[in-house]
Amino acid sequence: MKLLHEKIRKDGKVFAGNILKVDSFLNHQIDVKFMEALGEEIARRFSSCGVTKVLTVEASGIALAFPVAQKIGCDMVFAKKSQTKNLGSSVYSTPVESFTHGCVYDIRVAKEYLNEDDVVLIVDDFLANGNAVRGLLDIVKKAGAKPAGVAIAIEKGFQDGGKRLREDGVRLESMAIVESMDATTGEIVFAD
Amino acid sequence: MKLLHEKIRKDGKVFAGNILKVDSFLNHQIDVKFMEALGEEIARRFSSCGVTKVLTVEASGIALAFPVAQKIGCDMVFAKKSQTKNLGSSVYSTPVESFTHGCVYDIRVAKEYLNEDDVVLIVDDFLANGNAVRGLLDIVKKAGAKPAGVAIAIEKGFQDGGKRLREDGVRLESMAIVESMDATTGEIVFAD
Repeated sequence: MKLLHEKIRKDGKVFAGNILKVDSFLNHQIDVKFMEALGEEIARRFSSCGVTKVLTVEASGIALAFPVAQKIGCDMVFAKKSQTKNLGSSVYSTPVESFTHGCVYDIRVAKEYLNEDDVVLIVDDFLANGNAVRGLLDIVKKAGAKPAGVAIAIEKGFQDGGKRLREDGVRLESMAIVESMDATTGEIVFAD
Repeated sequence: MKLLHEKIRKDGKVFAGNILKVDSFLNHQIDVKFMEALGEEIARRFSSCGVTKVLTVEASGIALAFPVAQKIGCDMVFAKKSQTKNLGSSVYSTPVESFTHGCVYDIRVAKEYLNEDDVVLIVDDFLANGNAVRGLLDIVKKAGAKPAGVAIAIEKGFQDGGKRLREDGVRLESMAIVESMDATTGEIVFAD
């Protein structure tokens, strides 16, 4: 998606350790108008799938999942990373290893909000090793729901999460795939 | 706000320990159309304030702050609860005690996303003892920005967070104020 390539080139910052900082618009400060444009494009790509629910995981996925669900016209659900007092005991849960935080945590969705009649579009801001997405797919499977596919803002193409998901037959739509980044020059190369 | 009163009476569930479960539409599953209506009402109430930024804290505040920022036509920022690799060291931070999670954590906003030219509307889904909101107000103060006020979906009027904020001269707009709840009967009484 050309609009996202341009935005990343303009506002993204590359740091050592393959870190792409896009927190000026995607996952800390949120450029709401830009997220609406991303949401519209994702909704368009999955428009023929009969999506009934958009599923993401807290926290930064929410600001993309919201406009996607707006454009599709359905509800969204965000998986929780901690067992709060407000979340009942009847949940689907699965362990996820985090690249960003360097730990393993369980993600949880209350059973009442996903069921076998749902067609679920999974949305997240980043895809690297794919662990969060695999966790969400596992929850969709446990709920007996149908996965429509996975929509990601930025895929790190130099990690193998996206490749393995595609090999497994998952429909994966990444709005931008970063092939390589250079922290010294700031250069970013996109797929296509 | 009558619409929210009706929604809480229809979909909310009262549990022992003064827990109001509204995760079918507000903070787990998100009723996107309903959140748009809340966002519109909040934006209307602060329409004359020249708001340049909506500030919330991850995670459940994001799904309300997003439509508020949409209606106002500005960016939003969500404070982070953990120090991730993606967040630089140049942050405003302040400690917050959580009622829901039973712990103390720091919230952080990168300095580059709040400055003295900003007029900031603070948004959150719940207000109980007011600790999260006080933390966000502290961050706004540290940034030298101007607080436009605080907008909350549901205030627990039987806790003193809202009362104390109003006494301190903060403009606080709660879309619903729960005066009392009865876990046995499920009855909920709203202020006006």
